[in-house]
Amino acid sequence: MRKKIRAIQYGVGPIGASLVRLMREKQAIEVIGAIDTDPAKAGRDLGEVAGASNAPWGIQISADPDILDEAADVVVHSTSSHLPAVVDQLSACLAAESCVVSTCEELAYPYRKYPDLAAKLDKEAKSWGVALVGTGVNPGFVMDKLVLTLGAAAQRVDSVRVTRIVDASKRRLPLQRKVGAGLSPEEFKEQVAAGTIKHHGLAESIAMVADGFGFEIDEITETVEPVIAREAFRTEFLEVPGGRAAGVHQIARGVSGGRERIYMELQMYAGAPESNDTIELRGEPNLVLRIPGGTHGDIATAALVVNAIPAILAAPAGLKTSRDLPLCFFAPAAKP
Amino acid sequence: MRKKIRAIQYGVGPIGASLVRLMREKQAIEVIGAIDTDPAKAGRDLGEVAGASNAPWGIQISADPDILDEAADVVVHSTSSHLPAVVDQLSACLAAESCVVSTCEELAYPYRKYPDLAAKLDKEAKSWGVALVGTGVNPGFVMDKLVLTLGAAAQRVDSVRVTRIVDASKRRLPLQRKVGAGLSPEEFKEQVAAGTIKHHGLAESIAMVADGFGFEIDEITETVEPVIAREAFRTEFLEVPGGRAAGVHQIARGVSGGRERIYMELQMYAGAPESNDTIELRGEPNLVLRIPGGTHGDIATAALVVNAIPAILAAPAGLKTSRDLPLCFFAPAAKP
Repeated sequence: MRKKIRAIQYGVGPIGASLVRLMREKQAIEVIGAIDTDPAKAGRDLGEVAGASNAPWGIQISADPDILDEAADVVVHSTSSHLPAVVDQLSACLAAESCVVSTCEELAYPYRKYPDLAAKLDKEAKSWGVALVGTGVNPGFVMDKLVLTLGAAAQRVDSVRVTRIVDASKRRLPLQRKVGAGLSPEEFKEQVAAGTIKHHGLAESIAMVADGFGFEIDEITETVEPVIAREAFRTEFLEVPGGRAAGVHQIARGVSGGRERIYMELQMYAGAPESNDTIELRGEPNLVLRIPGGTHGDIATAALVVNAIPAILAAPAGLKTSRDLPLCFFAPAAKP
Repeated sequence: MRKKIRAIQYGVGPIGASLVRLMREKQAIEVIGAIDTDPAKAGRDLGEVAGASNAPWGIQISADPDILDEAADVVVHSTSSHLPAVVDQLSACLAAESCVVSTCEELAYPYRKYPDLAAKLDKEAKSWGVALVGTGVNPGFVMDKLVLTLGAAAQRVDSVRVTRIVDASKRRLPLQRKVGAGLSPEEFKEQVAAGTIKHHGLAESIAMVADGFGFEIDEITETVEPVIAREAFRTEFLEVPGGRAAGVHQIARGVSGGRERIYMELQMYAGAPESNDTIELRGEPNLVLRIPGGTHGDIATAALVVNAIPAILAAPAGLKTSRDLPLCFFAPAAKP
């Protein structure tokens, strides 16, 4: 019998919970522990906190990262979008000689915004003989990996345009709040200024795509605006009066010598007419790829992270990005 | 200055010509030679035979595979769809310590049909410290690599359906002939029986997808039928009277325990209403991916083969498939 992959879940928020539930469905994985410093979670059964129908699992959530000493094969990490906030957590995982797959958006392609942290993590990973990657649906897939994969069919790529429209009304409440649904335009503006409303990852996707296509990008610009509800409506969780924000409309551009080479647009709002992802490559030939209905953010993020486990375990030591890995489904009985 | 990638083109048919023209556009590649045993090509200038606007290139096509001794970094190989017919050519490339990217459809995933040849090539490649891969648009991308990449966003995959519709009237004459355009239904049947009309690669794609998703496939079935023209029409190259074949309609199925898990359909005929590729995954979640307009067979095949060069040079030694490689665009100045 093949040895199971021993995994620790680091962070048991809504995404961490979905990650650990999916890991438990994979026969090849044994979840050996979990870390969360939230006093409302630490000490409790992981299955219960994760909302698993087959809880309890007999695995206690630990507040103490010392359980990393168990030297899991992989730590699945989901605590924050911000790389500086989690770099010590990641270093501790690497020092325990565990590979890491993280949902940290800024880890997905950190070379541009945090070159020093990227170099530090790469060096540490190599010194411990393990690999780490930040991934998810976006950044990590729809706006970068899938764009680069489509680019394999192109002889020349001049410019890239990606649009992702997500109907937030079908998503969980924290996401609806995160996109500002229900806020007045002024409140929305304040929360953008405070940094609480913003999807993280567009700049990382642009940087990955630019490097993949060999675009020398001088500048990445980003705007965050509200989508205003014309009429009042309600989701399962909250009510949006007319004239208030239904969600967020974010545009990021990668500019090279005054010319826009990469355009990425994200609309996440309650009541969007139809979720869908569209990638357009201009070049030889022009290529269009659509995912009608869109790639569901929560389900796909959990999938992408757990499916990346075999690839990160097989990867050479160091800091990797989804660009480097042959991403694929984590098959029940993967052939060699 | 970085050393250029030294490449030899093996086979200068229509696809080989497009491969070598694209390689010449990549500053990172130096084409150092070409092999073709056709007396109408051997001894002539490669650029002229390849129909390059900037011919002559000062590179003579050799009839003698001994020029492999020049030990190119990579041989781009395009001589036949059939693995047994080319295995000695591939072995000679490996023995010259060159990596290989081949358009040979049966090399794209040879483990099911030719396990012994696959093992032999893998062993030889490892003993010479080089890697080889068979790729192209189909097999190699639309019906397998892209399917598996989409699968990275799925928590569970139950079944797969891929449809590729190609309007052959916009393609070159050899392709129109290859799909049987203009034949009577009887002639079409005879040519199918003789093996001259059949797109190779559906079985390879099914095998790759099955292994990638962990489906245990008992049987792969394949049918090849004509698409009959209702009315007479003409392409740039030939005329198809009504009641005659406009092209081919091919269906392949991967069956597991009596249940169809993988369905692949290829329609290549003159006058198809709209070229397009569609991938559907049933599972959690259901996922649909469309390429409206389709992935152009000739342009994309050349792109996929040349774009695979950096990946095969970076790969560990052995026989690889597009499933193993992080396929991407061959950027003008790829960052490390």
